[in-house]
Amino acid sequence: MRDFTYYAPTKVHFGRDKHKDVGKIIKEYGFKTIMMQYGMSSIKKSGLYDEVMTSLNEAGIKVVEMGGVEPNPNINFVRNAIKVARENNVEMILAVGGGSVIDSCKYTAAGVNYDGDVWDFPTRKAFVENGLPIGCILTLAAAGSEMSSSAVITNSELNMKRGFNSEYNRCLFAICNPELTYSVSKYQTACGIVDIMAHTMERYFIPCEPTELTDRIAESILKSVINAGKTLMANPCDYEARATMMWASSLSHNDLTGCGRENSLPVHQLEHALSGEYENIAHGAGLAVLFPAWAEYVYKCDISRFAQFARRVWDVDETDDTTAAEKGIKEMSDFFAEIGMPTKLRDFDIPESCLDKLSELCTFGRSREIATYVSLDFDKIKEIFKMCY
Amino acid sequence: MRDFTYYAPTKVHFGRDKHKDVGKIIKEYGFKTIMMQYGMSSIKKSGLYDEVMTSLNEAGIKVVEMGGVEPNPNINFVRNAIKVARENNVEMILAVGGGSVIDSCKYTAAGVNYDGDVWDFPTRKAFVENGLPIGCILTLAAAGSEMSSSAVITNSELNMKRGFNSEYNRCLFAICNPELTYSVSKYQTACGIVDIMAHTMERYFIPCEPTELTDRIAESILKSVINAGKTLMANPCDYEARATMMWASSLSHNDLTGCGRENSLPVHQLEHALSGEYENIAHGAGLAVLFPAWAEYVYKCDISRFAQFARRVWDVDETDDTTAAEKGIKEMSDFFAEIGMPTKLRDFDIPESCLDKLSELCTFGRSREIATYVSLDFDKIKEIFKMCY
Repeated sequence: MRDFTYYAPTKVHFGRDKHKDVGKIIKEYGFKTIMMQYGMSSIKKSGLYDEVMTSLNEAGIKVVEMGGVEPNPNINFVRNAIKVARENNVEMILAVGGGSVIDSCKYTAAGVNYDGDVWDFPTRKAFVENGLPIGCILTLAAAGSEMSSSAVITNSELNMKRGFNSEYNRCLFAICNPELTYSVSKYQTACGIVDIMAHTMERYFIPCEPTELTDRIAESILKSVINAGKTLMANPCDYEARATMMWASSLSHNDLTGCGRENSLPVHQLEHALSGEYENIAHGAGLAVLFPAWAEYVYKCDISRFAQFARRVWDVDETDDTTAAEKGIKEMSDFFAEIGMPTKLRDFDIPESCLDKLSELCTFGRSREIATYVSLDFDKIKEIFKMCY
Repeated sequence: MRDFTYYAPTKVHFGRDKHKDVGKIIKEYGFKTIMMQYGMSSIKKSGLYDEVMTSLNEAGIKVVEMGGVEPNPNINFVRNAIKVARENNVEMILAVGGGSVIDSCKYTAAGVNYDGDVWDFPTRKAFVENGLPIGCILTLAAAGSEMSSSAVITNSELNMKRGFNSEYNRCLFAICNPELTYSVSKYQTACGIVDIMAHTMERYFIPCEPTELTDRIAESILKSVINAGKTLMANPCDYEARATMMWASSLSHNDLTGCGRENSLPVHQLEHALSGEYENIAHGAGLAVLFPAWAEYVYKCDISRFAQFARRVWDVDETDDTTAAEKGIKEMSDFFAEIGMPTKLRDFDIPESCLDKLSELCTFGRSREIATYVSLDFDKIKEIFKMCY
């Protein structure tokens, strides 16, 4: 086990109707003026918007609204939100939505008290020193942003999707009502399942000393999410399965699954190039295509671990490690297909000629390699993209 | 899954030599004067005391020392510590030790800004409203007090051992260096294993809705701790096993293993009567005797759950649920014996006549019942004590 720091201070209010307490919760912290960000019109159609506003109004909280956060949230929206937040002396930022809205709020919160441009944070030109507090009402179980220290943003002028980690990115509180995800489509639910699994598996498959407890917790999350996913494909309104998925989303990415291990999320880095270049590709769908290809590319570097994954997560009953490992990857790939995810890059209707471009983006113009079992340079990354084209 | 609030904000600094950063860590919070509590002379013999003092001195932190916290910490010590803390305008309390020292610090921190007597907290006459912050350097993996919201104290005049929960009881930070536990005796190590398992199993065995993810995480902790325990009986200086045990201690009792479930810790309540009455009985040893008896008393109320426990935790390969459940309890009991724990109350050399007294204490003089699968009144509690005499 490697040395680690674990710090997941987000207060999670989990359960039915919890979003109706948002005004009371914020009032207890003493905030009087907040900015509320949300995505498109869905929260208005569902009635969530009205319930949240009622709770905030009853608590006497002044709300500055910023609707219209896009999937793959954009830095220009954030720059504008920062301006508005400053003009209104906003004290905290409330996200009502999924990972995109939360990440948009994280960048906004990071930028309000910073004189430069927020793009400085993902490019490591600056570090957050005085971020505003963030809270969220979660409507999508996927990104795990509600408890994580990371935040990803798209810069469409530069055609880049980048992230950064900071303790300021941890939500002060997260309100998690699984019922709010009943209306999430099967496709988006499947994308969420893949994202949660990927957050867990990325930390599981890293060259490292033994970490039995962290391994077993990761396997617990994977098994539970796989079962929940199967249930939800048949019954999208199964409370227990939605709850399992929502809690797994938080635990998969709040660092619990990485305690004592390295942390580099290589497949996420491949995928950020993909959905950064093609904004209509959902992050989870991109991961579903890339993860099995990446696994096939690297598994021979750590046969016993991939075999453990196969046996413990997929119940592969096979004594030979190599065969077990291969069967485990196949099970994962089959599961992604079973829940309706694409299996090949060509399913996204993008040309094979994109492989060079994607590999350029991944390596920041051939200027970096991605650390995993083998350090991935331009050629190796292109090979992985090609395997899943 | 039931609604829950999860809030485990303790910052954990985990790994080799981390205690040498204590001065730097405290300085970053801005505290200038602290009280440091510790137990007996062992931290002086081991050199830990000197290393901690060096780090604190280098950071320019004024230290008010209170050595001599006893196992089963005593309220009179705390009352005195509160007086000393007030006289010295102490800003935070640092525990260097195990659960006893941490709990003593929790009571001290709770009492400094409270006008009444600290015994008011465990008796629910008052609630903490302005506690001092607490930090710890952990030297024993067992109680999980480093991340928990609970604190237990002994009032020897009243012959009572009582606890209370409060968010103020959460440590601000916990420094967890597994190497500091190398010198813990086999007996105390085994007591710690039982305590960690009990914290996990208490939350696992409660009548409740399904909670697949929480179940699996609990099982992960149990399996890892059992394996670590077996390793440590053979090699007390195995870093990975000590690290597993230390991290499991924190996770078992920081509420993660109870998310979505009820929380009443019935066996702990039986045990607090035991080690409250007989202060030479180690808490873990008391639990080792009581847990199998309690399980035998209640398992028929939840056969399928006890069968799941047997199969997933103890690898019991048995299709019949009742047989599996019984084998699981036997495995647990055998494991406790294997690591050198007592199996019967009589092993503590206490007379059978104590059973009435213990049952009186448990029920606060027949004035309460303990909630579990069946509500335990005086007669039922006595029956359980009798089963394990």
